Amino acid sequence: MPFPGTPIRTGADYVASLRNRGLRIFFMGEPVSEPVDHPVIRPSIAAVAATYDLAVTDPELAAAASDISGVIVNRFLHVTTSADDVVAQNKMQRRLGQLTGTCFQRCVGMDAINSLFSITFDIDARRGTEYHSRFTTWLAAVQRLNLVVGGAMTDVKGDRSKGPSQQADPDMFVRVVERRADGIVIRGAKAHQTGCINSHWILVMPTMRLTAADRDWAVVAAVPVEAAGLTYVYGRQSCDTRAMEGDIDAGNAQFAGQEALIILDDVFVPWEHVFLDGEFEFAAELVERFTAYHRRSYVCKSGVGDVLIGAAALIAEYNGVEKASHIRDKLVEMAHLNETIYGAGIAASHESHPTAAGNWENDGLLANVCKHNVTRFPYEIARLAQDLAGGAVVTLPSQADFEHPEIGPLLDKYFQGRAGVPTEWRVRVLRLIENMTLGRNAVGYLTESLHGAGSPQAQRVQIARQMELEEKKEFARRLAGIGE
Amino acid sequence: MPFPGTPIRTGADYVASLRNRGLRIFFMGEPVSEPVDHPVIRPSIAAVAATYDLAVTDPELAAAASDISGVIVNRFLHVTTSADDVVAQNKMQRRLGQLTGTCFQRCVGMDAINSLFSITFDIDARRGTEYHSRFTTWLAAVQRLNLVVGGAMTDVKGDRSKGPSQQADPDMFVRVVERRADGIVIRGAKAHQTGCINSHWILVMPTMRLTAADRDWAVVAAVPVEAAGLTYVYGRQSCDTRAMEGDIDAGNAQFAGQEALIILDDVFVPWEHVFLDGEFEFAAELVERFTAYHRRSYVCKSGVGDVLIGAAALIAEYNGVEKASHIRDKLVEMAHLNETIYGAGIAASHESHPTAAGNWENDGLLANVCKHNVTRFPYEIARLAQDLAGGAVVTLPSQADFEHPEIGPLLDKYFQGRAGVPTEWRVRVLRLIENMTLGRNAVGYLTESLHGAGSPQAQRVQIARQMELEEKKEFARRLAGIGE
Amino acid sequence: MPFPGTPIRTGADYVASLRNRGLRIFFMGEPVSEPVDHPVIRPSIAAVAATYDLAVTDPELAAAASDISGVIVNRFLHVTTSADDVVAQNKMQRRLGQLTGTCFQRCVGMDAINSLFSITFDIDARRGTEYHSRFTTWLAAVQRLNLVVGGAMTDVKGDRSKGPSQQADPDMFVRVVERRADGIVIRGAKAHQTGCINSHWILVMPTMRLTAADRDWAVVAAVPVEAAGLTYVYGRQSCDTRAMEGDIDAGNAQFAGQEALIILDDVFVPWEHVFLDGEFEFAAELVERFTAYHRRSYVCKSGVGDVLIGAAALIAEYNGVEKASHIRDKLVEMAHLNETIYGAGIAASHESHPTAAGNWENDGLLANVCKHNVTRFPYEIARLAQDLAGGAVVTLPSQADFEHPEIGPLLDKYFQGRAGVPTEWRVRVLRLIENMTLGRNAVGYLTESLHGAGSPQAQRVQIARQMELEEKKEFARRLAGIGE
Amino acid sequence: MPFPGTPIRTGADYVASLRNRGLRIFFMGEPVSEPVDHPVIRPSIAAVAATYDLAVTDPELAAAASDISGVIVNRFLHVTTSADDVVAQNKMQRRLGQLTGTCFQRCVGMDAINSLFSITFDIDARRGTEYHSRFTTWLAAVQRLNLVVGGAMTDVKGDRSKGPSQQADPDMFVRVVERRADGIVIRGAKAHQTGCINSHWILVMPTMRLTAADRDWAVVAAVPVEAAGLTYVYGRQSCDTRAMEGDIDAGNAQFAGQEALIILDDVFVPWEHVFLDGEFEFAAELVERFTAYHRRSYVCKSGVGDVLIGAAALIAEYNGVEKASHIRDKLVEMAHLNETIYGAGIAASHESHPTAAGNWENDGLLANVCKHNVTRFPYEIARLAQDLAGGAVVTLPSQADFEHPEIGPLLDKYFQGRAGVPTEWRVRVLRLIENMTLGRNAVGYLTESLHGAGSPQAQRVQIARQMELEEKKEFARRLAGIGE
Repeated sequence: MPFPGTPIRTGADYVASLRNRGLRIFFMGEPVSEPVDHPVIRPSIAAVAATYDLAVTDPELAAAASDISGVIVNRFLHVTTSADDVVAQNKMQRRLGQLTGTCFQRCVGMDAINSLFSITFDIDARRGTEYHSRFTTWLAAVQRLNLVVGGAMTDVKGDRSKGPSQQADPDMFVRVVERRADGIVIRGAKAHQTGCINSHWILVMPTMRLTAADRDWAVVAAVPVEAAGLTYVYGRQSCDTRAMEGDIDAGNAQFAGQEALIILDDVFVPWEHVFLDGEFEFAAELVERFTAYHRRSYVCKSGVGDVLIGAAALIAEYNGVEKASHIRDKLVEMAHLNETIYGAGIAASHESHPTAAGNWENDGLLANVCKHNVTRFPYEIARLAQDLAGGAVVTLPSQADFEHPEIGPLLDKYFQGRAGVPTEWRVRVLRLIENMTLGRNAVGYLTESLHGAGSPQAQRVQIARQMELEEKKEFARRLAGIGE
Repeated sequence: MPFPGTPIRTGADYVASLRNRGLRIFFMGEPVSEPVDHPVIRPSIAAVAATYDLAVTDPELAAAASDISGVIVNRFLHVTTSADDVVAQNKMQRRLGQLTGTCFQRCVGMDAINSLFSITFDIDARRGTEYHSRFTTWLAAVQRLNLVVGGAMTDVKGDRSKGPSQQADPDMFVRVVERRADGIVIRGAKAHQTGCINSHWILVMPTMRLTAADRDWAVVAAVPVEAAGLTYVYGRQSCDTRAMEGDIDAGNAQFAGQEALIILDDVFVPWEHVFLDGEFEFAAELVERFTAYHRRSYVCKSGVGDVLIGAAALIAEYNGVEKASHIRDKLVEMAHLNETIYGAGIAASHESHPTAAGNWENDGLLANVCKHNVTRFPYEIARLAQDLAGGAVVTLPSQADFEHPEIGPLLDKYFQGRAGVPTEWRVRVLRLIENMTLGRNAVGYLTESLHGAGSPQAQRVQIARQMELEEKKEFARRLAGIGE
Repeated sequence: MPFPGTPIRTGADYVASLRNRGLRIFFMGEPVSEPVDHPVIRPSIAAVAATYDLAVTDPELAAAASDISGVIVNRFLHVTTSADDVVAQNKMQRRLGQLTGTCFQRCVGMDAINSLFSITFDIDARRGTEYHSRFTTWLAAVQRLNLVVGGAMTDVKGDRSKGPSQQADPDMFVRVVERRADGIVIRGAKAHQTGCINSHWILVMPTMRLTAADRDWAVVAAVPVEAAGLTYVYGRQSCDTRAMEGDIDAGNAQFAGQEALIILDDVFVPWEHVFLDGEFEFAAELVERFTAYHRRSYVCKSGVGDVLIGAAALIAEYNGVEKASHIRDKLVEMAHLNETIYGAGIAASHESHPTAAGNWENDGLLANVCKHNVTRFPYEIARLAQDLAGGAVVTLPSQADFEHPEIGPLLDKYFQGRAGVPTEWRVRVLRLIENMTLGRNAVGYLTESLHGAGSPQAQRVQIARQMELEEKKEFARRLAGIGE
Repeated sequence: MPFPGTPIRTGADYVASLRNRGLRIFFMGEPVSEPVDHPVIRPSIAAVAATYDLAVTDPELAAAASDISGVIVNRFLHVTTSADDVVAQNKMQRRLGQLTGTCFQRCVGMDAINSLFSITFDIDARRGTEYHSRFTTWLAAVQRLNLVVGGAMTDVKGDRSKGPSQQADPDMFVRVVERRADGIVIRGAKAHQTGCINSHWILVMPTMRLTAADRDWAVVAAVPVEAAGLTYVYGRQSCDTRAMEGDIDAGNAQFAGQEALIILDDVFVPWEHVFLDGEFEFAAELVERFTAYHRRSYVCKSGVGDVLIGAAALIAEYNGVEKASHIRDKLVEMAHLNETIYGAGIAASHESHPTAAGNWENDGLLANVCKHNVTRFPYEIARLAQDLAGGAVVTLPSQADFEHPEIGPLLDKYFQGRAGVPTEWRVRVLRLIENMTLGRNAVGYLTESLHGAGSPQAQRVQIARQMELEEKKEFARRLAGIGE
């Protein structure tokens, strides 16, 4: 275990735990010596820290007692023991979305833990392996220290029309390049890794259905974030450098998401942290279970949507038009779409069933439906928010202009809205709307809503599989009077 | 009690119970002597009968033990005692939608019973009345006989810009015209009364928020369907007379909905069946509770949607194009929209809370969101079903043509689809799609989806009230750095 | 020529011309002796008659001088000689939609004439045939008598995954079964034949791209409606029999569309009326030109939409809510969608180019875009119209009930709306909305909008072909700084 | 005239003309000494320069002979003399959108010139003023030098629920603060001023309907960009500073839009450049004519859309999935929406009519419909582009990372797509998509599409006025059989 010391409790503990890890990180062509102190990275750490603080202030929502380790753990580390547990994840997710207005980066790990818990059990049962006990041993240790676990699934993929073993370059999907007595060596890269630098452990998993030819790519492993051979390249986000320019233009100066490329350059993993090696035939099922959990985890976006709806209502108020019927109606439409996302997520979680391993897993069809709405509605909510914002959301001068001794007072005068509302408030809420619809958190609220947990077509494939078409045809045949 | 005999158990018992009641019914300008034997009305009775049969074949889904009467009752008569009970209603509703492909007409009564149960309790608590005990006494009797209860809420309304007491004609909303020692006399008419002729009792309720000037319109009463003074005028439905032309052109020959106008021409109600009289200030709350239940009851349409999706899949198969990617994709879209409806409903029910009276009531916001999606998605599902059906869905010759000795064989030849599929099957499934998108059951699947339980704007008003805009603004202020 | 007498001028002349033709027509299992006198068929004839009357009252809009015959002809018979001519077709179509609220059935013929005019020219140029002169000779004769020409394209198709020569039954597409010295004999059936019984001539054309194996199916021919071997089976339409029940319940008692199956049971066509025989390689191009014209002809639906928007505005007024902001807003949305359809049509026509034959043909891409919007927006307009209508649109009693001595006065009382508006007006406008959204004219306004001139996927295929993707990629490459 | 020298011909001439003007400009808290050399501003100048170069390379499209000055002018300065002229504007706009992928900033001026040409004529006719001759004199001079004219309409507005004279601060709308013998002095500020710094002259105009109390705010004036008293504060745009970081991360390094606040701090305007002063009753009509032109000018976005569709097609190709049916289908949907925008614009222009002043003005209703689609469809096109792009569009490392000696080669390896496509190409096209959907040109493609030429509600108000509801009601009444 990398942090043999005291368990993490608060956000501050967590931030402290990230220091001095000596990670190899690049951002904008430069190595990052200490991410905790980097102005662009820091807000993403704050978002993860909020998950710890919530467990302190609202333990019913964000903490749970784990049978596996016998301690109270952050809910993001908890293996679900009931449908209520699954529902509680959604409620915690919405709340954190409301509190941070961004991606707090821990759902992948939570969903990976829950899907690995059940799939390792099933593999052992069918193949006589011992993955499940390895996994629970590792998890118990992680739980005792209350660490952050990231899940690394998405490979870089190369030619998207080809599978792992068909690629010209075999490293397009993470694979085992060496098997040793004490463990395995893996190579490849994982793209779009949410919160990876902010984690303590990464769970590496395959990203798609595999065939017999892909045996070396069928690998699941837990890797410490500071393991030798790992490099992190921080992805650019729209308006990321505004974090270096003061607190206003950033829109949401406190919180942001994090996406990086992880390069695994021959990383060694001891056998005790290997939870799949070669059983390719379970890859599809692992992905399906993970995405079942994870597609419903996107109810977090309804929490982010709450912030954006609130911001849209605020700017309408500051502009003096909050009573106009069309303004009101657009807020209702935004809320309607936002709650539709939430509804499908809660329904998926409520319709959970126990797995053979004993944890609870949500309904797959409704989870896909939830996520599929997430690929659509935030874009419309964002459009409506921009509608209420007015054109100033994209033409505002900078904070430095507003603070300029000559030009500042004129801007203060000319950007005023309704009497009694400081111009700065208008500017701040407009910048927040810009942040969420075009800027740094638009990445999480829009594009990640589209592609996270699988792109729209991936949901359609699952809906096609799960929509019980034969049963529906039979209903139609009965009513139409068609025999046989 | 009008049926002092044996409790109803099966659909056949139920149909028998409807005979010889001597109701005053008109259809197409003619009195209907026995609705049970009328070809246009009979399918609507069969749909209600299905609710009895389901309770026999699947009692867990469609029956429940009632504390109020101490007997097992049809779930449509049950007062909810847990969130699971509320969820179970939704599951039963979807199932019946799948089995009948139409409106089975009992949700209004179920939702009226549950909302009256709690509101009469509250009124008694605040006004010292005895409505609750009257109501539960009446309900226990109804439960013991396992009867059908309809709920009559929608008044005819006259000038929609005016309230009851402002109308030129005071009868535009049902009102008390006389108060006597033994009871009250009520007058007016209720429009769009789903399944009223197929019921044993009608619960008359006000339809909107009332003011002090509207005291005489603040009335809730249970009225036997065969009470003196009641007239029923059967509404026309698209293609209704096809029920008289054979089984194919009707599309769904077995099941249909029922909408009628009830005219209450000075109907006497004894005090024991009066559950509100004059306490106008509770009307809005009653309507809100009823619509909270009822807007989520529209998940029944996801069951009807299952039938239509199945029919669309069948016609694609019969046409030989079921593997085309665009066909498949449209079926996925239909299923996605259909499950989105279901998701919001299940979520609303799952998020139930106990009332002061002890029964459980679902979440209001999610229920409105559910219904609001119902005002949109069935139309799109229907459009896609017609897309898959092809033009023949509206140009098919009649059953009589297909059966004609000369022309029939030619039609059989020229309307064939894929080899091995009888032409009649194609015709039957096309007629079912016509039935559900333009014909008799389009009334329930489309227009009633729009207006039942309140038109779209009614949901928007409720969403506006319940969307917690102040809390959302506070989320935005915190993240934007706006002090209070 | 079947009508060697006087040219048709007025609608009355036209109706007279249809009498006593001895056509073999079936409807609901019975032969129809005289369609002109049949209550279900008559409104469809009236819609065609309106095209004649419009040419009398507004000749600039609906008539044109033809170079081919040297006479003034109805615009539906005119070969376009300028872009303005093509635009004028659209304006005439919208106007007739406004006047009839239904399909007036002459666009297929108009568009067939224009596409055959140019394609026969091209075939002759490349194959040395004489189709063009045959065609213009025939057309001149038709123009001199000012007749109605229908176009018969859609085959019955059998297994939709197979082409003509692959079908188990070769008659699934109309084909030449015999070639004689004096002409050809054709067999098969054409489905969804708009206005065929109301025409004087039918232009039979292939419906899809053909291969060398499909040579016998590559046939274009002009056939008189009363030719030996033709049978017409009148398709059922939603609520069709209401035409026999009085004028109110029908909704639009004056006008309706007409769709029938034409069975061609070995019909002889003399060579002078054969405009294609075997040149299979031109079938795709003919279909593409025809659909280019015809997909833009669907701007007629914006005229029908005008009626429905007007009806929705009327019912809002009669209900007393026409000033409510959400009502007003829905009317705006309906108008916006309706004009979007019109805009794409007008643009397609305006962007016309001359063909080698000298007539003018509209832009294909915009025509497909126009039609594709027609497959979507009328459904949304209809949904909004039902929203404004309220539930009564599907629960109104019959005309006979309103006229019943006892029940009629009560209905008159209880269905009243705003003071000063006769109840009958409310009923009539509700019936019109029902007619256009569920009833007889919903067939034309909705389902035919979906499938006429090709189903949605057919437009997507054409858009894919015409969207100039390579050019667009080059724009992107230039701006992205991608060489090569 | 500020530039008495040689007329501008090429883009290079134009850029030269902008140098050394000594404008007072602020950006990010700093004065900008020479905008032509500023990396953030320069791409916006290049976009305007493209309008000159197009007139050289394609004069038929982008130039026209002006009767007013007797010279060939850039079409952006041309007063329309036919419907074809109005259509030609649209075609030029689409082309420039394709060439620049951004807003080229000259439409406001073009549309202002055309609306002022006709409104000044009408005012003179009704008020005996001499605005029209002043205007044409000024315009002739501008045409002879072939200058850039910007139009300044949008005031900063303060409390949006109040008119100019009701504001607490009278400067919330530009107004005349002094009238002198030689001219007027104006004060206020204009927000969201597209391309103002890149112009030579600005036409100041009122932004809304005015009342008698607003007389001082009823002012139209031509002001040289370098006039004393003018300050420009450059608005921030998403990702604007990437222009300083190399050419790749910017996405579109060559072209961008420009939005600034203009502060008019007591600017003197001689009478010869005053085209309205006090005739408040014409303000609404001026705005209506301007927006009629300008809302149809938004077909430029279909040109920008072409770029984005091309970029989406490219990334699909580079990813190896361009043949997948769902990919193809999304490209078709994007093209369909894009052409729908174009269609309504072309139709509006084609349906032009001559004004009393003799120039041609497009149809107002269709122009509003065009713009209203522009407030919706680009958002959906952008969503689909992001769908095709995949998650890398928001997680790519920076150009500096790709060029880093150690990490660069690894990134080159791991971001490769299909064999044969350089990784840099993938990166470049992804950056272009980011630029257009979240970055700098998303401002113009999305938010400006929403708010430019009036926010969505402004179009709905106009559609409500122009949708001829009474005529539509009459159509419905006729068909429903409702007498007057």
